[in-house]
This record gives sequence, structure tokens and C-alpha cells, in this order.
Amino acid sequence: MTASHPFDQATQLHAETPGQYQGHTHPGYWNMVGPFGGITAATLLQAILQHPDRLGDPLSLTVNYAGALVAGPFTVQATPVRTNRSTQHWTLSIMQADAEGAQVVTTTATAVTAVRRETWSAGDVPMPGVPQPADLPAIPPGFGSEWLSRYEMRPVTGTLPRAWDGSGDHSLTQLWMRDAPPRPLDFCALAALADVFFPRVWLRRAHRVPAGTVSITVYFHASAAQLQETGMGYLLGQARGQEFRNGFFDQTVQLWNEAGTMLATSHQIVYYKE
Amino acid sequence: MTASHPFDQATQLHAETPGQYQGHTHPGYWNMVGPFGGITAATLLQAILQHPDRLGDPLSLTVNYAGALVAGPFTVQATPVRTNRSTQHWTLSIMQADAEGAQVVTTTATAVTAVRRETWSAGDVPMPGVPQPADLPAIPPGFGSEWLSRYEMRPVTGTLPRAWDGSGDHSLTQLWMRDAPPRPLDFCALAALADVFFPRVWLRRAHRVPAGTVSITVYFHASAAQLQETGMGYLLGQARGQEFRNGFFDQTVQLWNEAGTMLATSHQIVYYKE
Repeated sequence: MTASHPFDQATQLHAETPGQYQGHTHPGYWNMVGPFGGITAATLLQAILQHPDRLGDPLSLTVNYAGALVAGPFTVQATPVRTNRSTQHWTLSIMQADAEGAQVVTTTATAVTAVRRETWSAGDVPMPGVPQPADLPAIPPGFGSEWLSRYEMRPVTGTLPRAWDGSGDHSLTQLWMRDAPPRPLDFCALAALADVFFPRVWLRRAHRVPAGTVSITVYFHASAAQLQETGMGYLLGQARGQEFRNGFFDQTVQLWNEAGTMLATSHQIVYYKE
Repeated sequence: MTASHPFDQATQLHAETPGQYQGHTHPGYWNMVGPFGGITAATLLQAILQHPDRLGDPLSLTVNYAGALVAGPFTVQATPVRTNRSTQHWTLSIMQADAEGAQVVTTTATAVTAVRRETWSAGDVPMPGVPQPADLPAIPPGFGSEWLSRYEMRPVTGTLPRAWDGSGDHSLTQLWMRDAPPRPLDFCALAALADVFFPRVWLRRAHRVPAGTVSITVYFHASAAQLQETGMGYLLGQARGQEFRNGFFDQTVQLWNEAGTMLATSHQIVYYKE
């Protein structure tokens, strides 16, 4: 398989036995002390999508970041623990050798895939009215961690504070985004896009403190056909903190395509220091 | 141990070996085709809280309902797969014998517990201004499934539609609630309270269709001390659907105590038919 896009390189897995895969961290998606959490989530979903016994498309994914991956190879285990008529339940983990060579769990996850049928449908959170992506400047590449250069981001509101002066008073960010270079949207890319937002605590406080995602959940509303229709277009992402308390805050996320279709919703709980 | 409150009876577990517990379904929390999902979530959390190796208090819990439990005994497995300096990552499952006597997985879960330190804190979703619980009538007991009688509910807005006439236009419910009879709040009870809301699709459509939670996540913001302060007081619960699409909708939930402290936020994805 030729994997020319960095996203495909980073999420490439080689099956050893059914459900057990070898992967390798990718420098293009490196964050400060490990891979970008979104690429780890995408890699776990990739293990499910490659599994020969998979039923249906992704419905929900929860990833718990137990410890940072180090640069190098890792093993993904993906097990369909229960298959019903139209849903399938998965447990997953990532293991990596520690300094002494012992395999340790860096990441745990669960997921549900489902065969979906057309039903009555409606949205209760319409896409907010915002300027079009072409009318908004993109954040210049090379800003911050390496993985940020793998995304084109055109902020609408709630950018990084210009001064870390403690003046923050809200935690809402809206931005247009897509892979850089552009890449047709799929479930794995969508999972990663749910995690692109910088820590809400930085915005809320206008104060920069160490922070990192502990657990993220993504609910997939889009069908494969809707992802295909979205193609290389932009997604509007919206993120907002709910409660910041004693070292952890939670965040809600919505992702729409340019046509206003809600593709995914997501939540995470994030550690912060001080 | 005397377990006089039905909630304590329903979540009672007997350890066999460290991390493996025997429990039994409780008729008082029976739903239509299995136990109330909230009591299952509470039981899984109970397994963590009883584990001799536990570090810290609950931070996040994700429960995946793979198959309905039948009335009878079940086994809970709770494993601390990674313990860091201040966080601990758990994987859990519930197993039950099927008709042929084989053990099958009915439920999977992951959780994070954490030792929390006092830091800068703030809320970005203040409690909405609503009438006090004493000023609102309680839903009469004996309405619907048995488990509903284990909760005192005083709706503010978004009650069950009076007519199933397809006239629904929103999915927001707010209600005051607590265990019935009253019981001092703890982490397990809080987890269960995050799941008391009737399916948002019934409200949004004013149309009743089969529905059931597939996966729920609860983020705990409260400390043990804040739960103790809340005591037997009411919680204000708020639930809203985000997207209803092809057989599944997602729901966001916030839970405050009467003093306006956000105790937990929660999300779930729910199956619905037609």
C-alpha cells in the first residue's frame, strides 16, 4: 500500500494475527511529550476498520490516555467482545515496550460500530452562522508543535490569547479546519479532528499551564457517504469548556461540514496543572 | 454489612478475588428489558471503589451496554491496568451466564480515578435560574418502569409529552431529582443520576419509539467533600439531544446541586428505532 499522505503513514497498521497490529509513531504528528492525541484515536479506529470481523461503521469511540507513547513501534490490540445483530462492541489497547523492555499499556479504548438504517432524523444544535473559510486567514504553519502543521486552521473566534495576562472570560472556540495537505475525509480523520482544539483552560484563563487530555469520546453521526460528500472540504469545529475544577476540565465539541451537516460530537476531560 | 437502601442493595458486590466481584440484579431498579442503565454504571463504579488498589476518586467513567442483563447473578471484573502518580486507568466488564450456561459479556467499561489537588477553578455553564424543588410537583410514583419509583423527580421543563402526536420541537429537559427514599449522595449515586432522563427522541418527536442507551460517559467534577455537603439535597439535571440521525442520537447532561455547584457532566449515545 502506498501511503503518501502523512495521516495515512501515521495510522498505518500491519496485522500480525487477527486483532493484533504493529504501528509506529510518526514525527509529523508529534506533540510536546508524545503523539497528538487525535492521531492515537485515529490509529485505534483504524485497527477496528481493518479487522476482518468488523460489523458496520463507527458509532462511538472512547480513548483513555494512560501514558505517553514514546517515539517508536507500538502494538494495537482490537477485540470485538460482543457482536449483536446491528451493533458490535470493541475493547482496545495500545502497548509499548518501556525502558526495561517490558510491555506496558499506554492507551485503553472502547468502541461501538453499528449497521445504521435510514430513520427519522433531526438536529438540535444547528451550525452557527459564521464567515466562510475563504474569508478567514489561516494560522501560519510552523506555529507550535509539529502536529499543528498537519492541519489547516482558519479561526472564527476564540483563538489563542494574544497576551497571557489572566484576562480570559470564556472558553468558546470556533474554527474551520481540514487536513494539510487536504485529504478526503474518512472516519479516522474525523476522529482526529475532534481533538485539534488547544486546551480550553488556556483560553478561559488567558494563562498557559501544562495540560493534556485524559479521556476523549467521539460520537459519529455521519455515514460513509456523507464523509465522501464532505471530501476535502472544511469542517467547522466548535469547542467549549463546561467546568474547570481542581486539575481537570471537560470540553464539548461539535463538528459540521460546510453544508451544515453535523458529522460528529465529542467530549473530553483534560488535566491541567495549578 | 446492612444495606437497607434499595440503591445499596442493588450495587452490593462480594469480592471473590481482588478485582472480581459477584453481584445480583435488583427488581427495584428493573427497566423494560433489563436493569436501569444508571444502576449498572453505579455497580461498575462500586467495583472500583471497593478495589484494594484504588488510587483517588472517580474522574471519568464510560459504560458500553453490549447486551441486556437478565435477572440474576452477574460477575464484575475491574482491573487497574495502569497506575500513574496521580491517575489510575481501569478496564471493566460485566459477565453473565447465557441460556446455555456460557459466560458472555453484557457490559464493557473504562474509568479513570485521580488524586485531585486544589487549583484555579471556574464554571462556564452556570446553573440555569429555575424554581426551587419545593415549588414544583413531584412525578407520582408508580409511573412507568419500576426503577422510576426509586427516584423523586420534580420536572421544571421538558416533561414527557402529554400527547404522542408528533408535535415535538425541542429536546431540553430540566428537573430536580434525588434518590427515593432520600439517600446521602455519593459517587455511585451520582453516576446513576446522570442516566435518569427519558429518551430525548420521545420529547423531540412527541412520538414514542423503542430506545436504549448504547454508551454513556460521566465526568465527575465533585470532590467527596462536595458530595457530602450535597447530602440528601436535590440535584438539578439538564439533558438535551444534539443530533438525531439514522437510529442513534446523542445527549448532553449537566448535574448541579442546590447550591449551584456543577457535580458532573455526562453524555450518551442512544439507539432508537424508526
